[in-house]
Amino acid sequence: METRTQDTASFEVTPWEVRGKVDYRKLAEHFGVKLITESELEQIRKLAGGELHYLLRRGFFFAHRGLDSILQRIEKGQRWALYTGRGPSADLHLGHILPWMFAKWLCDRFGVELFFEMTDDEKFLVRDLPLEEANKYAYDNALTLIAIGFKPEQLHLIIDTEDIKYLYRIAIRVAKCLTLSTVKHTFGFTDSTNVGAVFFPTLQIAVAFLPTELYREETPVLIPAGIDQDPYFRLARDVADRLGYPKPCTIYCKFVPALTGEEKMSSSRPETAIYILDDDKTVKKKIMNALTGGQPTKELQRKLGGNPDVCVVYRYFQAYVDDDSLVSKIYNDCKSGNLICGECKLILYEHIVRLLQELRERREKAKDVLEYYRISTKFR
Amino acid sequence: METRTQDTASFEVTPWEVRGKVDYRKLAEHFGVKLITESELEQIRKLAGGELHYLLRRGFFFAHRGLDSILQRIEKGQRWALYTGRGPSADLHLGHILPWMFAKWLCDRFGVELFFEMTDDEKFLVRDLPLEEANKYAYDNALTLIAIGFKPEQLHLIIDTEDIKYLYRIAIRVAKCLTLSTVKHTFGFTDSTNVGAVFFPTLQIAVAFLPTELYREETPVLIPAGIDQDPYFRLARDVADRLGYPKPCTIYCKFVPALTGEEKMSSSRPETAIYILDDDKTVKKKIMNALTGGQPTKELQRKLGGNPDVCVVYRYFQAYVDDDSLVSKIYNDCKSGNLICGECKLILYEHIVRLLQELRERREKAKDVLEYYRISTKFR
Repeated sequence: METRTQDTASFEVTPWEVRGKVDYRKLAEHFGVKLITESELEQIRKLAGGELHYLLRRGFFFAHRGLDSILQRIEKGQRWALYTGRGPSADLHLGHILPWMFAKWLCDRFGVELFFEMTDDEKFLVRDLPLEEANKYAYDNALTLIAIGFKPEQLHLIIDTEDIKYLYRIAIRVAKCLTLSTVKHTFGFTDSTNVGAVFFPTLQIAVAFLPTELYREETPVLIPAGIDQDPYFRLARDVADRLGYPKPCTIYCKFVPALTGEEKMSSSRPETAIYILDDDKTVKKKIMNALTGGQPTKELQRKLGGNPDVCVVYRYFQAYVDDDSLVSKIYNDCKSGNLICGECKLILYEHIVRLLQELRERREKAKDVLEYYRISTKFR
Repeated sequence: METRTQDTASFEVTPWEVRGKVDYRKLAEHFGVKLITESELEQIRKLAGGELHYLLRRGFFFAHRGLDSILQRIEKGQRWALYTGRGPSADLHLGHILPWMFAKWLCDRFGVELFFEMTDDEKFLVRDLPLEEANKYAYDNALTLIAIGFKPEQLHLIIDTEDIKYLYRIAIRVAKCLTLSTVKHTFGFTDSTNVGAVFFPTLQIAVAFLPTELYREETPVLIPAGIDQDPYFRLARDVADRLGYPKPCTIYCKFVPALTGEEKMSSSRPETAIYILDDDKTVKKKIMNALTGGQPTKELQRKLGGNPDVCVVYRYFQAYVDDDSLVSKIYNDCKSGNLICGECKLILYEHIVRLLQELRERREKAKDVLEYYRISTKFR
């Protein structure tokens, strides 16, 4: 089962790495996922009471597996759940929270609950973070997650090393369906890989089946995630039938580009990303240094206008500013030469800083209530 | 790391299989374990207050790894613990309980506690037992274990699928030290093996380090087990240092022969073993059909005497009857021709049936108190 996507000519997307300029249409084809259609968007809009989240409106969420079956359940008033997760580390950046913001909207619109897995074990097994640190970051990252605005009844937080009892029994049933060969091939493991890394995918898959166990009724999940996580969920869909669980469905998000112009923000290169805990000065510096679609000089920009379609700064407006009228004004003013890059960046800075300040304030409050979000507080 | 012992000429011992006539001296050499010496037996006798368990006296426990370091700890009054386990199934037979009876003696003599792992996950992952059944047998087998006579403060019962939270954090640290290559080589896994079976050894190893975590002080374990389990504990000793745990020590038991004469009772061939839940009639039939070292006819037996040294029935006396004077009387009366096989078998039957009746009675009582033995009742 080959799910690593490699197009040596242009780009590579795996759970570990994104390289090159991603062609999302090709990527969807390669992974075998479906593009979201206009009529599906209309259906969501209708079901959501006439509103469409801006990340759907603007095509950030662009592909899926089985979205149609979730929409059918919504129409019929049947139970479903959301699931996403995070490999906790210090480097939580703006790219990571897009699916979380989207999930929050789904929770609000559809009264659905989010199961969220903090894979501190994976960070230790695969990424070489000390276990204690990974666990500490799980708690830290959870504060930002809660700061998105989830209510305790909307969000069920799973920390792998602490909540393993919810997962293990499902995971070994998944494990029995997966040979070494399959997992090696899917994730590119070799005989030098440690046995924990090889077992880990069963835990990421297990959460997809957990709601069905906890609610004791068929509860398929919809998983908002980066498309690089598809190999896990493709395996999950493969084994679901055999285990008597509903197939998990996915909805995939495009990457938010690096400030420096690469395809995706990188946790390991600070200059490419805006971290949630960056101070205002750092954020300003990073945005002011961002790659734009502007002209080489102020004069040329006034005269010829810029090219927002290839501009990282404009992409951030699209990704983080809900207000369509502002975003299209930015677009038009750039094109016409009315707006020069320095001014535009300051406007973005104001928006990003407001978002981060809000998140940081709410993070502080989250410290006192984190326990209410933990799965162990709510399910036996 | 080659720990499967294969001597194509005569015998094979792995965690999955025992075949051929086992030469225990060769086996010890092959596995790289030490034979227990007379002076070590004397040391144990002294430390135990002048008494030596009959399974030690008679050489059933014959080999070890690191026993000397445990004896040193006993001398110094330092903390240690016992650890053994069982892959639960319906087929609990007399062979299985030898290490448990020995462990009980150690608990009583040295005030030490036994950590006992029921590997219901392994039975599911490796042996194809349905998970629910394996779990049910874990509870069932635990009743027999308790029936050996352990007090709740002596025995801490771990059921893998239910008590995974005690093990997982240790297991992933073990897992990080074990490559696929090592585990494949040690246990003979291939790329067709499921990823759960490949991860499982980390859980069997994890229990060896659990007492150190629970008591928050260095607590090496002594593991009474069949020598076929050595590959697990050899790996455990290999990784202990790297993880900052004391090396686990082992003491290995010879197999109790099959009633039909093969080297080891087989769970899958009922006629070879006496099961704990066999009714008296079945036990009688099995013993009466057992292979002996007797002569072809009663007359020849009276005239020439039998050969207890190759007799399965005599071996059972050695394995299950503490009383030295009775066992040596059987030996001598057989040799002299005073005792014929039918009579001898009836004497054995009386002893075995008494043992089984006692176990079954205590099993009934154990049903009400099983919870007191569970690790979750005693440790957070």
